[in-house]
Amino acid sequence: MKPTLGPTIELDRLAEKRADKEYMAQLIEAESSRFFVIAGAKPVVDSNEDRTRRSLHWFTGPQITDLGLALSEAIFLGLDAEDETAKFAVATSEHYARGAPQAREALKERVEIRTLAADASMPAGELGLVAQAASLGTWHENHRCCGRCGGSMSFKSGGWKRKCWACGHEAFPRVDPVVIMAVTDGERIVLAHEERFPDKMYSVLAGHVEPGDDIEHAVRRETREEVGLEVGDVRLVGSQPWPFPHSLMLGCFARAEPKDLVVDTTELADAQWFTREDATAMLAGSHPDELWLPGPQSMAHQLIKAFVEGEA
Amino acid sequence: MKPTLGPTIELDRLAEKRADKEYMAQLIEAESSRFFVIAGAKPVVDSNEDRTRRSLHWFTGPQITDLGLALSEAIFLGLDAEDETAKFAVATSEHYARGAPQAREALKERVEIRTLAADASMPAGELGLVAQAASLGTWHENHRCCGRCGGSMSFKSGGWKRKCWACGHEAFPRVDPVVIMAVTDGERIVLAHEERFPDKMYSVLAGHVEPGDDIEHAVRRETREEVGLEVGDVRLVGSQPWPFPHSLMLGCFARAEPKDLVVDTTELADAQWFTREDATAMLAGSHPDELWLPGPQSMAHQLIKAFVEGEA
Repeated sequence: MKPTLGPTIELDRLAEKRADKEYMAQLIEAESSRFFVIAGAKPVVDSNEDRTRRSLHWFTGPQITDLGLALSEAIFLGLDAEDETAKFAVATSEHYARGAPQAREALKERVEIRTLAADASMPAGELGLVAQAASLGTWHENHRCCGRCGGSMSFKSGGWKRKCWACGHEAFPRVDPVVIMAVTDGERIVLAHEERFPDKMYSVLAGHVEPGDDIEHAVRRETREEVGLEVGDVRLVGSQPWPFPHSLMLGCFARAEPKDLVVDTTELADAQWFTREDATAMLAGSHPDELWLPGPQSMAHQLIKAFVEGEA
Repeated sequence: MKPTLGPTIELDRLAEKRADKEYMAQLIEAESSRFFVIAGAKPVVDSNEDRTRRSLHWFTGPQITDLGLALSEAIFLGLDAEDETAKFAVATSEHYARGAPQAREALKERVEIRTLAADASMPAGELGLVAQAASLGTWHENHRCCGRCGGSMSFKSGGWKRKCWACGHEAFPRVDPVVIMAVTDGERIVLAHEERFPDKMYSVLAGHVEPGDDIEHAVRRETREEVGLEVGDVRLVGSQPWPFPHSLMLGCFARAEPKDLVVDTTELADAQWFTREDATAMLAGSHPDELWLPGPQSMAHQLIKAFVEGEA
């Protein structure tokens, strides 16, 4: 089960070299090194004329400096396996990209990750890098100060660590495991609409893995909480990095009794059992009530497709 | 695959009620509510004479106040399904438990989670609660101040959220996904010794899922980094909450070519291919070189056992 937004394998992340300060500095200064810029959740891209194909815009180190961005806080993504050049991401804010005189023009063409994932205009490998950089960028933004003492956290290890200058506390990038599950009774699937969703979009149930949960327990707990069903068999069928802001989606099939749903209306605006025919029409965009589903870049889509095809 | 340290299902966590301030206050004040204390990674317990059986020591609300601990920062664990009483954990420091005159005596009998998990002296349901509370306690400790502005973070939602009084930034409990994998060539398994391990203990490879990884990618990346092997098939076979400090272990089987290992000596003191006979002896504690393995409470043990039994 492979959603179209996934990990990239083109780069050697060289995790064991990240803490080597001199090596990192050398790479940042190397003429062949390249940097892309991500502002909020929008990378700077180049597009073809009709915007059906996009690719990351790669800047040189001196260009990054000219943009007023800090090379010292470039996030090390890895070495390109083909030509051994180092690749970095530089995270900045939407505000800066829009307002800073020296950056405005050069950073003008920015596209939302959700758009890039939905329209498949960017090569999967580059999109994977964008997702990774977006997750790290948000994490840095939320860890400027030390959680223990409030002191200033320094950027370390090519952006894969922060450390408090005052108390020495270290923080590492965060990844939030989330269970996302096709709950079925064999013939029907539970799909829900949340207030925050676009109009008429439905999706499968999902929820964060909490301290003390294993995957099965999280699936059972969330399904019970959200729709009042007891789940039997749980099967993990795939996983996916999901950069909103830094999740790991754990896609599962879960079997439940064909009982009426008891919907938790604080979490969900609506949830219903849908037949295979309903789900097929929703996938095809031909549902009589115009209900629709997340796109193929998402684990939700892949799970519902698998159900439609009889796998769940 | 079920390690003996796992989730507890006896309590209804009532996640949808956590944000209800009045309800939480009512539960904390209810006469029937009970609280256990965890100091660092050691819960306060009661033991039988020979310490083969242990259980959590449950305090009343007034007792917690008398100990000088804050009821307002009690972590809500859930309602007991049997008698509908609320259960809470109160996290404090090793330092306080040892030194505070009003607490020293009452908090005297404290046992490390690792000990409780290894000697199986505590019922699994209680041990699950301890693991959950330890994870949350560490998270609170590391999120006293706001990562965005350095302001003070308030305790919210029965301990399942913190919020900055200054800028409003919210933080939620952290769970770190970690892949742990039995890398085999069908006949042999890769086991490694890290500097930080006890003498002569070996275990399977493991590593954090990073932003941009899915499970398979993390297994491939870590195996390549640590022992230089390329992994083919990856299969997730189980998961486990692991409170050191707040991980979700994702147990996998991974198939690799029977090549020589190239060991990353910055991460590992040693790594070798071991035969099924070797692993069997290590599990049984009868290995000629006295090499041994983690106990049955761990995913590592379960994975190696499955390999020995021919499942991997």
